[in-house]
Amino acid sequence: MATAPIGDRKSSAGAVLERCHTLAALSEMPGGLLRTFLSPAMREAHFIVQEWMEAAGMQVRTDAAGNLRGIYPAAGENARRLLLGSHIDTVPDAGAFDGVLGVMLAIAMVENLGGRRLPYAIEVTAFSDEEGVRFGVPFLGSRALVGAFGNDLLERRDGTGVSVADAITAFGLDPAQLPEARITNDVFGYLEFHIEQGPVLDSLGLPLGVVTSISGQSRYTVRFRGQANHAGATPMHLRRDALATASRWISLVERYARATPRLVATVGAIEVRPGAANIVPGEVRASLDVRHPDDSVRKRATAVLLEDAQRIAKRCGITAEWQSHSEAASTICDPSLVAAIGRAVTAAGHPVHRMSSGAGHDAMILAKCVPTAMLFLRTPGGISHHPEETVQLEDVEAALAAGAALLMDLEQRRG
Amino acid sequence: MATAPIGDRKSSAGAVLERCHTLAALSEMPGGLLRTFLSPAMREAHFIVQEWMEAAGMQVRTDAAGNLRGIYPAAGENARRLLLGSHIDTVPDAGAFDGVLGVMLAIAMVENLGGRRLPYAIEVTAFSDEEGVRFGVPFLGSRALVGAFGNDLLERRDGTGVSVADAITAFGLDPAQLPEARITNDVFGYLEFHIEQGPVLDSLGLPLGVVTSISGQSRYTVRFRGQANHAGATPMHLRRDALATASRWISLVERYARATPRLVATVGAIEVRPGAANIVPGEVRASLDVRHPDDSVRKRATAVLLEDAQRIAKRCGITAEWQSHSEAASTICDPSLVAAIGRAVTAAGHPVHRMSSGAGHDAMILAKCVPTAMLFLRTPGGISHHPEETVQLEDVEAALAAGAALLMDLEQRRG
Repeated sequence: MATAPIGDRKSSAGAVLERCHTLAALSEMPGGLLRTFLSPAMREAHFIVQEWMEAAGMQVRTDAAGNLRGIYPAAGENARRLLLGSHIDTVPDAGAFDGVLGVMLAIAMVENLGGRRLPYAIEVTAFSDEEGVRFGVPFLGSRALVGAFGNDLLERRDGTGVSVADAITAFGLDPAQLPEARITNDVFGYLEFHIEQGPVLDSLGLPLGVVTSISGQSRYTVRFRGQANHAGATPMHLRRDALATASRWISLVERYARATPRLVATVGAIEVRPGAANIVPGEVRASLDVRHPDDSVRKRATAVLLEDAQRIAKRCGITAEWQSHSEAASTICDPSLVAAIGRAVTAAGHPVHRMSSGAGHDAMILAKCVPTAMLFLRTPGGISHHPEETVQLEDVEAALAAGAALLMDLEQRRG
Repeated sequence: MATAPIGDRKSSAGAVLERCHTLAALSEMPGGLLRTFLSPAMREAHFIVQEWMEAAGMQVRTDAAGNLRGIYPAAGENARRLLLGSHIDTVPDAGAFDGVLGVMLAIAMVENLGGRRLPYAIEVTAFSDEEGVRFGVPFLGSRALVGAFGNDLLERRDGTGVSVADAITAFGLDPAQLPEARITNDVFGYLEFHIEQGPVLDSLGLPLGVVTSISGQSRYTVRFRGQANHAGATPMHLRRDALATASRWISLVERYARATPRLVATVGAIEVRPGAANIVPGEVRASLDVRHPDDSVRKRATAVLLEDAQRIAKRCGITAEWQSHSEAASTICDPSLVAAIGRAVTAAGHPVHRMSSGAGHDAMILAKCVPTAMLFLRTPGGISHHPEETVQLEDVEAALAAGAALLMDLEQRRG
């Protein structure tokens, strides 16, 4: 059988965008979008998304981690299952598409089957938390699927003192049932559609990107300590200016990353003390975020940049120390699922651009247990985590076409 | 007649330090020193300082700007007057000596006359406000002496909504009498003793510095605007990172100032937006403070540094704009008073080191109306505006010896 005709896909793409906008109105922040783990806004989102899932023919439940999970049954008994999903929580002052778009695309893919059953079941999951805004820990939703939702997480508290366990109970769920949220052996793959959140596809003029890996990440704080002094009374040769020194290093971080293929290194936050216009800075704390698809390249780059901090500081008569905050290994997407997505993109009439994801995603978590892949949609201007985040109708059409081709490809190969 | 013998000066120097510490206990901030314009802590300071002034033989009044003014009469009638003074307000979490030391030294110089009258009167002034902490405008005290305390100043309000006029009235003074605070033609000179607040004398191993000028100052905010983006998803070549660009400029500001004799240029405050570790900075606001004894050098340097900001920004595909906050011309100290202080330092047995003050002082204001000079005392480590601010006993002795020699020098030349 053929996939849904293009005309249908066009109106289907329109519905996907409309649904993203509908959900963007469900917010716990006045004047902007914020929807966190098991919040009242999340409950409203569940009501609506559940309705859409059920209308598409899915049986819907909410697991103990607050993930909304709709199952579209297979044609036969004891069939295996394909997982499609993304998250429906957001950052503060978010755009309408980060996460949400992946869930809406998955629902539309099931809708576009028009009731036709496949030799495998499809489970669409709307993860309850990927951004980690409420409890300061990301991936609460997807962790539950891979058995990585430990008791320590249940005890974490939000800004108002409510624990994760309390929040689960208040939502009408039972933390004791978390083990039942785990996926079982019948899941043969996880696929996540997501906006790129970067400018690469936009700069190349391409609608879709096939993700082959998710970059590993190292996060540090580097502290430069010199001597605060009067900006008027301290001649240049007697200064130990922590900001002038940190600035030399920040310039070097950028230059080093530019010179190293596929490396990104960012100093995104900086704090200067005392921080007055008329005082020579005595101390600077700067963040460092380093990512690369290849863990060994990332580790070497991080070591070089930290050594540079020390070398530059020493030359300026000040000290540099650092603290590691997190180290995440890179995630390699499943080669055969990546190949299938490549064929589907080609079948949909678009060039196949393979790329690494620099951002973390639920796919990183799922990949620990199940063959995983991702398909990126162009993000105009690379603007994300911002109210001006957009996605183009024709790119949603392209994703739906590729998604339909993928379901067919898997049908033929698993049939 | 001779000045007081050295033995007396030693115990006198001890008393000066002890009095500074006594006043440091009068604070409106728990756990640290803060004393602002016409605050309850300032009233307590007045009680004590007035007592010391009176014990030294002065007639004391408080003028309408809250300056405590003690007059030690001359030997004869219709004599001219020498003004000695500094300020007794402080910055938050201050040390014990900035400002206060100059007033305590002036009182001790009068005390050390032992009641002996000179051919000229001495007026010791404890200025009510130099730091500008309470109302955001510095030099409220000394402005009143030169007729620069306009009605616009009276209407300014502090953080709690109290106006300058209200504060003056609440202190028991009358704003209408501000004109009577002005100094008259009988004042022939103003001399201010002050800690250097910088590390120059300490690095040279000298107790005293003869100030020949107070540097002019230009203050700006420079704003770099690029594009905020996801730190993982945005490759280096597609970034417009405002902090990486600002860092190149900050390094250059420091290098340029190092290469220009007597120039100081400082970026002391910086604000990064959005300011998250995982977001490429979209905007940076950085302060720029440029000072030099020669106004033309300062103006040229400022223009060059601002052009550099634009040039560097343009090369990085981002914009740089700036806003001027203040421009202060340099103040030249009175050559004959500077020469007299030089002779006095020599007479006291110390080398004469002539230097420019990079910090602003009440002397800048007084210099508009009266021949003015300053004598700096070594500041160990250059540490000032900080609880660890110190001054050495032998340097206070040196200042008292030079002060006594100066009074004698003026006596001989005006006698």
